[in-house]
Amino acid sequence: MIEVGEASSAFVIFGGTGDLSKRKLVPALYQLAKQGALSPSLAIVGTSRTHLSDQEFRNELHDALVRHSRTQPIDEAIWDALASRMRWVTTANDDGYAELGRVLDHLAVEKDTQGNRLFYLATPPSAYIPIITAIGRHSLASAASGWKRIVIEKPFGSDLTSARALSAALSLTFSEAEIFRIDHYLGKETVQNILVLRFANSIFEPLWNRRYIDHVQITVGECLGVEERANYYEQAGAMRDIVQNHLLQLLALVAMEPPASFGADAVRDEKVKVLRALRPIHPDEVAERAVRAQYGPGYIEGQRTAGYRQDEGVAPTSDTETYVALKCFIDNWRWQDTPFYLRTGKRLPRRSTEIAIQFHGAPHQMFGREASAGLEPNTLVLRLQPDEGISLTLGAKVPAQGVRIRSVNMEFMYGFDTGSPDSYETLVLDALQGDATLFMRRDEAEEQWSFVDPILRGWRAGNSTLPRYDAGTWGPTEADLLVARDGRAWRKP
Amino acid sequence: MIEVGEASSAFVIFGGTGDLSKRKLVPALYQLAKQGALSPSLAIVGTSRTHLSDQEFRNELHDALVRHSRTQPIDEAIWDALASRMRWVTTANDDGYAELGRVLDHLAVEKDTQGNRLFYLATPPSAYIPIITAIGRHSLASAASGWKRIVIEKPFGSDLTSARALSAALSLTFSEAEIFRIDHYLGKETVQNILVLRFANSIFEPLWNRRYIDHVQITVGECLGVEERANYYEQAGAMRDIVQNHLLQLLALVAMEPPASFGADAVRDEKVKVLRALRPIHPDEVAERAVRAQYGPGYIEGQRTAGYRQDEGVAPTSDTETYVALKCFIDNWRWQDTPFYLRTGKRLPRRSTEIAIQFHGAPHQMFGREASAGLEPNTLVLRLQPDEGISLTLGAKVPAQGVRIRSVNMEFMYGFDTGSPDSYETLVLDALQGDATLFMRRDEAEEQWSFVDPILRGWRAGNSTLPRYDAGTWGPTEADLLVARDGRAWRKP
Repeated sequence: MIEVGEASSAFVIFGGTGDLSKRKLVPALYQLAKQGALSPSLAIVGTSRTHLSDQEFRNELHDALVRHSRTQPIDEAIWDALASRMRWVTTANDDGYAELGRVLDHLAVEKDTQGNRLFYLATPPSAYIPIITAIGRHSLASAASGWKRIVIEKPFGSDLTSARALSAALSLTFSEAEIFRIDHYLGKETVQNILVLRFANSIFEPLWNRRYIDHVQITVGECLGVEERANYYEQAGAMRDIVQNHLLQLLALVAMEPPASFGADAVRDEKVKVLRALRPIHPDEVAERAVRAQYGPGYIEGQRTAGYRQDEGVAPTSDTETYVALKCFIDNWRWQDTPFYLRTGKRLPRRSTEIAIQFHGAPHQMFGREASAGLEPNTLVLRLQPDEGISLTLGAKVPAQGVRIRSVNMEFMYGFDTGSPDSYETLVLDALQGDATLFMRRDEAEEQWSFVDPILRGWRAGNSTLPRYDAGTWGPTEADLLVARDGRAWRKP
Repeated sequence: MIEVGEASSAFVIFGGTGDLSKRKLVPALYQLAKQGALSPSLAIVGTSRTHLSDQEFRNELHDALVRHSRTQPIDEAIWDALASRMRWVTTANDDGYAELGRVLDHLAVEKDTQGNRLFYLATPPSAYIPIITAIGRHSLASAASGWKRIVIEKPFGSDLTSARALSAALSLTFSEAEIFRIDHYLGKETVQNILVLRFANSIFEPLWNRRYIDHVQITVGECLGVEERANYYEQAGAMRDIVQNHLLQLLALVAMEPPASFGADAVRDEKVKVLRALRPIHPDEVAERAVRAQYGPGYIEGQRTAGYRQDEGVAPTSDTETYVALKCFIDNWRWQDTPFYLRTGKRLPRRSTEIAIQFHGAPHQMFGREASAGLEPNTLVLRLQPDEGISLTLGAKVPAQGVRIRSVNMEFMYGFDTGSPDSYETLVLDALQGDATLFMRRDEAEEQWSFVDPILRGWRAGNSTLPRYDAGTWGPTEADLLVARDGRAWRKP
């Protein structure tokens, strides 16, 4: 199925012993090796400012794999083969980068990587530009033969200006086709299934527009609080952490026109058209079209939990939002006047990501008002997590004499198990194979910031309050009012 | 929920100790009594040529109820109350009918039936006209006060001429609104659910036409052979037994335009429009558009079964068809050129009634031919029996790297249990309440015969063969060819 030859490469992990490397990248590489999807000439080079021997690097990753692998126990033979291709290089200064260059040149011969190089930035964002600059300065991406690619983790900038600066720095050394901006949501099976569902079936597309759809709700609900990420989260907040990337990507996938192919640019062209058609939320509109909030103390699954300001690493006067709800419109022929309500929050009652397409009610209830009382409009729910699946709310007859109609659910569960790939397996393999379909293009990232920036500006200008919500609830009253003003209500996922 | 007063009536069962009365009617009356849905002043009068005492009548029905009730054990208190309202009258001659008249007059006072009379013809069809004539001759349906209704079991005639004659005989004594022609299929929950599904939901109607639907398959498959019904079946055959009524009714429910209300005439007006729009199959077209066949010996669930001609009561040279397949078209704006394939047969591998709506494939497979190989078009299946439910075939992604698409099923099961009414409970209560929505009107019955008669004529003229199919198979090769000529295939239910 997989053309092994294509993936022959040096795989350079900046932040090689960091959290992402240990929890996601190395487990993904291990699973791919186990499936025989990696080229035997793939070489893995870990690097950071830390001094390590090759063996120490391998040992750290082995320990991490034992903890984080989705299949247990570890197949040590596969690990050994993988570990034998691992090298460590310390890049604390220019000498280190020069050494990295020599190692990569050497590997091209020793491991037959054919000069192909994939640079994976698994570091904190503050290190991105220094590393990218150093790669350029030391001509690490200018080998005579082979391809070069760079993978960058989110967040891709913290606003439009910084995202542009990052893309500008990248563009000095890499062409846009060589830049792989990761949104790991896009590697999820169910996210890819949005496109398959919409475009491999004939029955949804005719209904997929303002004529038949009343509104769309997209929810990314987290049960967790800020955990160990306070340092990052205090700067980011829910808007940058979830809305700017995941929620807007989901919106784009739901709303896009059918692309002609599943090719990277065909899909991304259509997504970016949706993002460009997003009606801006101006700073002075944030009170009507956006809600931000912060969790206070509360109960989750019967456990008392602290409020955000009491969490470790959070300033006691922090104004960082942990909840965002938006009312979005897409100004195009298909979606005019069809609201897309987006929301995300931490410390909600349940971890739950779903897209709910609510159709208009039937135009005429031939069974009469009484028989149809309590009938809900048809709703197609794409559940991304947990229990990935699709459900469709239908009106059906209550089994009894006479006609009384109730809403029932038709269900399909993907039934994913440990056999399903983690999103990093998908994305790492795609990057090695040069398939950018599931990565964000520069224009997408920038359009997303263009939409988000004015809202953040409005909030900074104090154009709306920052209400509290109790941990373990579905968010503040203000969010309920956001949809209630339109005569609608949030679903309880 | 049910207005008890409305159902106050004398309920006269002709063929009071016959098979239908015992297996269906009395169990239905018992269940309705148990639910409190019967008026306490309902009086049940059994009658036939047989001489019985009231007590013998009650005893026979009690024994039948014990055997046939869908809830066990019998609640004897409810039975006793019901039995106390049961009378027997022997109608072997005119004196008997005169006596029946006196009993009904008496009950109007004694049991407070208010003069309302429901006559239920649960006899062999040959008795219909003599009984209807006797009812008229003895003015049994001409009481000064109260309503009168007559319920007639299928078959309603054996061709257009006899159906017209039967309606003509009825019309001497009953108005069309007083005539309730039973097709017990229409009392089934899932059949009523066809209308609820189509018209209580907004998402199906936009797709429900030639633009989105490739074709429709309606299957009424029986596992049983002719059993004890050879006498009737030899005359009727599958065409009269199943196609003329059940299959054409199901076709009409699937194809009809949305009625303005669930009222009897609103629904039947739309059904009859479909029946009138059926493109006739002329006698000289039977070879191309119709298939008949007869089962030979074979195996069902590992058991050797005899062929039809070897079955008890069947002529060894019988040419009665036990299988029919038709290719139908509805010549109207919605359905032009969309085939409705109908089939029914005895001794098929499984008992199975279903309506399969097969949609066109997606117009463009953006995921490529290889990824979509094996993908079936979307199909909505309404399963009427067994395991009543709805299933929808969808294309979804195979959980793995890369995009490969397979067909999966989304399911909804009605989960009927003994709490669900039998169709006779629904229909008896409807008749008592005067709701004719689920009964066939004269014009429907006649349109159905008008469609069926020319096919039968073509067969009698020898315009097609009568192939054999092995018991336990899905019918003859000729039926496969009927759809294969159009590049399609029958589903295996």
